[in-house]
Amino acid sequence: MTAEAALATSGATTKRGGRGARRERRSQGAQDQGRPYIVRNIPTYDILSEESLEKIEQTAERILAEIGIELRDDAEAMELYRKAGAKVTAKADDIWTLSFEPGMLREILKTAPAEFTQHARNPANNVQIGGRNVVFAPSYGSPFVMDLDQGRRYGTIEDFRNFVKLAQSSPWLHHSGGTVCEPTDVAVNKRHLDMVYAHMRYSDRAFLGSITAAERAADSVEMCRILFGADFVDQNCVIMGNFNTTSPLVLDGVTTAGIRTYAAAGQGSIHLPFLLGGAVSPLTMAGSVAQGLAESLASCALTQLVRPGAPAILASFFSSMSLRTGSPTFGTPEPAIGSLVMGQLARRLNLPLRCAGNFSTSKLPDGQAMQQSMMSMMSAIQGGTNYVLHSAGFLDGLLSMSYEKMVMDMDMCGALHAYLDGMEVNDDTLGFDALAELGPGQHLFSTQHTLRHYETAYWESTLNDDQPWETWSEKGTFDSALRANLQWKKTLAEYEAPAMDEGTDEALQDFIARRKASVPDMWY
Amino acid sequence: MTAEAALATSGATTKRGGRGARRERRSQGAQDQGRPYIVRNIPTYDILSEESLEKIEQTAERILAEIGIELRDDAEAMELYRKAGAKVTAKADDIWTLSFEPGMLREILKTAPAEFTQHARNPANNVQIGGRNVVFAPSYGSPFVMDLDQGRRYGTIEDFRNFVKLAQSSPWLHHSGGTVCEPTDVAVNKRHLDMVYAHMRYSDRAFLGSITAAERAADSVEMCRILFGADFVDQNCVIMGNFNTTSPLVLDGVTTAGIRTYAAAGQGSIHLPFLLGGAVSPLTMAGSVAQGLAESLASCALTQLVRPGAPAILASFFSSMSLRTGSPTFGTPEPAIGSLVMGQLARRLNLPLRCAGNFSTSKLPDGQAMQQSMMSMMSAIQGGTNYVLHSAGFLDGLLSMSYEKMVMDMDMCGALHAYLDGMEVNDDTLGFDALAELGPGQHLFSTQHTLRHYETAYWESTLNDDQPWETWSEKGTFDSALRANLQWKKTLAEYEAPAMDEGTDEALQDFIARRKASVPDMWY
Repeated sequence: MTAEAALATSGATTKRGGRGARRERRSQGAQDQGRPYIVRNIPTYDILSEESLEKIEQTAERILAEIGIELRDDAEAMELYRKAGAKVTAKADDIWTLSFEPGMLREILKTAPAEFTQHARNPANNVQIGGRNVVFAPSYGSPFVMDLDQGRRYGTIEDFRNFVKLAQSSPWLHHSGGTVCEPTDVAVNKRHLDMVYAHMRYSDRAFLGSITAAERAADSVEMCRILFGADFVDQNCVIMGNFNTTSPLVLDGVTTAGIRTYAAAGQGSIHLPFLLGGAVSPLTMAGSVAQGLAESLASCALTQLVRPGAPAILASFFSSMSLRTGSPTFGTPEPAIGSLVMGQLARRLNLPLRCAGNFSTSKLPDGQAMQQSMMSMMSAIQGGTNYVLHSAGFLDGLLSMSYEKMVMDMDMCGALHAYLDGMEVNDDTLGFDALAELGPGQHLFSTQHTLRHYETAYWESTLNDDQPWETWSEKGTFDSALRANLQWKKTLAEYEAPAMDEGTDEALQDFIARRKASVPDMWY
Repeated sequence: MTAEAALATSGATTKRGGRGARRERRSQGAQDQGRPYIVRNIPTYDILSEESLEKIEQTAERILAEIGIELRDDAEAMELYRKAGAKVTAKADDIWTLSFEPGMLREILKTAPAEFTQHARNPANNVQIGGRNVVFAPSYGSPFVMDLDQGRRYGTIEDFRNFVKLAQSSPWLHHSGGTVCEPTDVAVNKRHLDMVYAHMRYSDRAFLGSITAAERAADSVEMCRILFGADFVDQNCVIMGNFNTTSPLVLDGVTTAGIRTYAAAGQGSIHLPFLLGGAVSPLTMAGSVAQGLAESLASCALTQLVRPGAPAILASFFSSMSLRTGSPTFGTPEPAIGSLVMGQLARRLNLPLRCAGNFSTSKLPDGQAMQQSMMSMMSAIQGGTNYVLHSAGFLDGLLSMSYEKMVMDMDMCGALHAYLDGMEVNDDTLGFDALAELGPGQHLFSTQHTLRHYETAYWESTLNDDQPWETWSEKGTFDSALRANLQWKKTLAEYEAPAMDEGTDEALQDFIARRKASVPDMWY
């Protein structure tokens, strides 16, 4: 039998009308459709005691006060920190050590919103970030892409657009992400224009802008002014930048200039220490968490010094190391525990959190990939992460974005919607009548209760195969990676771009053309 | 390159001396070795409010009082329930409805231990069941077995022995389980003898006995008397039986006779409703949980009527249903939520719990298999399950025991050891000195802190491939299923049975021979 026939019977349809729509209602549950983001209905998983949390916080404060944060190549940021009360010690012409008295950064961050809206060009897709909300975005930053047909190769702008289209087509992601892969066929100093345009044109969800240089950050915001209108952009968050600290304990000037650009425009920013234990943070997880907290606090605070009230997201990316080979490891248990603790710390700060995601070191969309991903992703959603970057596609220790893994992760994100809905307990769901109707020993297929809940009781995967072995076997013994391969091709073949005002589109393209023409290509 | 060479470089060694042992210490962490069971160091994940828990408990009590439990074909059990205060209504000659006043079963169960020891023939492998303890046992009850070489076929006693040997060889399981697969090449009325012997001979861990007929349960206990001595067996739990209710709301006489046999001998029993929502329990998870609680309470209570103080384990197995096809689905989000709630209910009863495991409907050890397994298994360990049957090998909706999946699950169980250890927070793990030693911008590879923790900081998989793509690619681009395939073959090739006293072995074999000779083979 053909791959398409297999797919047709597997229910991986994206049709919206007639029988397809009914099947979709049945399979996804009416309550799960069209949610712009998840509002969690279960508590967070708080694993650490008050006493231990305080020890971590005290260590973070001690790091900030006694070791300090090194700031490089951004005198303007240095002045902002100094005016706010940081002790500044010059190490070299453009390198300073910033020391912060205990509590100082927390005080500064009191003007940062606990929760904010990032607007999408389709207002139905606005996302609420912070509080009980959970927003899933695809993976970010891989130089390579992978699929089962062509294997691993450098990403291109076509791959980039494909990933944006796949994310847009999934009901289980909420945000278009940012650098869904590096489009290595576009000049380094111009690719941000094509990337931001792809998010704007092929998705109608919220997205991230460029951060690799201050002028690219500015271009990203400028394109938003074309899309949303300058006044709207000044008053609302419509774009965010994802900024990495340079661990351990360094803020690079390119990063701080980018943070200042986003904050000055009233836009959002994510402040991410990428902590590989034993390499750029202590090998023990408590130490990694303390350091991550210190670095993210220092980075977040800059936003409030530029523009009080600018949205800032506390963040951490924990990973471990193979003690045998020295390789970084992702999706392992210790970082999952660290992410849960980071959630507790973020809530004590009353700041939104980005943490964890579907991490894996596997080089294929196989069992290892999904086992590691689940270990990491469960910690994200249980720990109360508000913005989950790397929700889909992550393989190869973040070096590769995988087409199949993206489909598999998006399906898993669907399951997590149902998980975060928790358990409704009321007379109807308790179902006493269902059992009383026919009594002991009788199947419940035909009870009123079953008929009433039949379309919505369970979330249903459109990727997993739950049918009997015989049925599965007759369909060709496909594993989930192969089904995912068929599914992304079908989704791309059926994809239709959301409508966009022609004048806006032309203005965006015109801006991009002018910016590209204004400077020669740079490839490094 | 050959499979063996690939394996050698993947670190999947079981060598115990010299370089192998050092590598193993490094890779597993000294603190993780030789643990007979896990003592959890993180709290349970309690997702439901007191009010909702009470509603579920009240519904369970109402089911027991107003609908009742149907008991079939066991007049002796009926008399025990009647004498304890149950209202008994005859429905037919050998069918009774038992009704229990609210609170009655809870009162009866106050004599059941909150925690108990199941003894292994190697006392170092005794397991503590209940409280903060977590015990992993392999999957149970599949008629088929699978591996990548031969595909799916009926299980044999050779397969059975192989699974016992694989479990015994893993540091990450604690218990040998029971019917690790159905040995379909041995007569139905005699296979329990070969199964119990295999656990006794090829493992030195605790195990489960037969429950398919009262005399087979009795044989299982009798074999324990040979192995442990009759007096020891009378005073200690050395074997347990896993008993299913016949949902909805029926106790079958074969089951209750088996329960009575184990309890009378002072041995342990597990009381498991297998609840497929919409088929044998309400489609809504709150209702399934209430029913599961009612059924397990009624079944557990019988043990205390036979012998107060006999170990009894509350249990539930939740699954959902594909609303599109009617197929049972495993490893889905709603049952995971149900399992977390069941954990809360068990703690309120102060009874040990068996719940969830590495469930999947996948027909291959692929991404789907591990994604679903993790969804289910995380709920087991986070929800406080004390005895996790189906910890390794489960595929095909429990119809097949997979050699590769068993290896993959056992490796995951290793990760869960580290996860349940949680985060140690003290001056050493907070690692302030590690950061202070070299300061901002300096890698921590060579710090004293790193060197001190280098052998034990992280749990390390012996199955997952965390190496760079190039290294992995040169080794043959194996996925995790193929690596698992190589690993189980190597483990079986290197397996050595734990020593057993010759006289005991002969006595066991003699008992088996006599029992087998005493009745003709039965094949149904």
